[in-house]
Amino acid sequence: MARIADMKPIGVIHSPYKNVGECPNQSYKSKEIAEVEVFEEYEDGLNGIDGFSHIVIVFLFHRSKGYSLIVAPFHSNHLRGVFATRSPRRPNPIGISIVRLIERRGNILKIRGIDMIEGTPILDIKPYVPLFDGDVKIGWLEGKIK
Amino acid sequence: MARIADMKPIGVIHSPYKNVGECPNQSYKSKEIAEVEVFEEYEDGLNGIDGFSHIVIVFLFHRSKGYSLIVAPFHSNHLRGVFATRSPRRPNPIGISIVRLIERRGNILKIRGIDMIEGTPILDIKPYVPLFDGDVKIGWLEGKIK
Repeated sequence: MARIADMKPIGVIHSPYKNVGECPNQSYKSKEIAEVEVFEEYEDGLNGIDGFSHIVIVFLFHRSKGYSLIVAPFHSNHLRGVFATRSPRRPNPIGISIVRLIERRGNILKIRGIDMIEGTPILDIKPYVPLFDGDVKIGWLEGKIK
Repeated sequence: MARIADMKPIGVIHSPYKNVGECPNQSYKSKEIAEVEVFEEYEDGLNGIDGFSHIVIVFLFHRSKGYSLIVAPFHSNHLRGVFATRSPRRPNPIGISIVRLIERRGNILKIRGIDMIEGTPILDIKPYVPLFDGDVKIGWLEGKIK
């Protein structure tokens, strides 16, 4: 059985943002280029990732400490439950960002649309498959449907 | 600093699927209704969640054991890197599903579009905000834009 205690980072973010205050509050607003360094032991797991225009990065809010169940989102002064927001101060400090994949070179992914700071530990990478129609490239379906 | 070792489930899935073999390979194919039971100590974190038509469930592939860097996706016989697939046999067995939120009653969320089995531990819940245009209801923006 899988256990949370056995989890460990598979890579790390190299970001132009050194502190949380420098990050955009929504990653799509960022035009900055960043890099995902996947640790070499996991490099083979990236095979085929370049068939996708966008990827999902699952990461740890490593600077976060403790949590609040009720938070005030950045863009609002309405108080909300933490699960209705993207606040980093969550019971389990897991973040998710959808970013554009620009290029893969070996164990390095060049990405755009980032809201993570330098040194952010990465827990997982997944292909982004939109819920609705969109012009996203999906590696699984290449050559099968338009 | 947040640590992986401090993470623990915030809830559990009650699903009509009792085994992995019964699940659809893409959650949007499922018309079944399931429930998210958020443990009572975290209930306040759900305030405002019902402003969203869809939510993101972050869960543990608790039945998964070990991982493979190269896998054969369900719908294909091409071998791919695990990070280019949704395989449960990942270095960190974290799953993500976008599901339709039908109703909240206290600490219970009724959802549709599920690919999780009974007893799946939930690590986090987030509002779903599409990357591209779509007819998704977004609680944050209600009354601000169409």
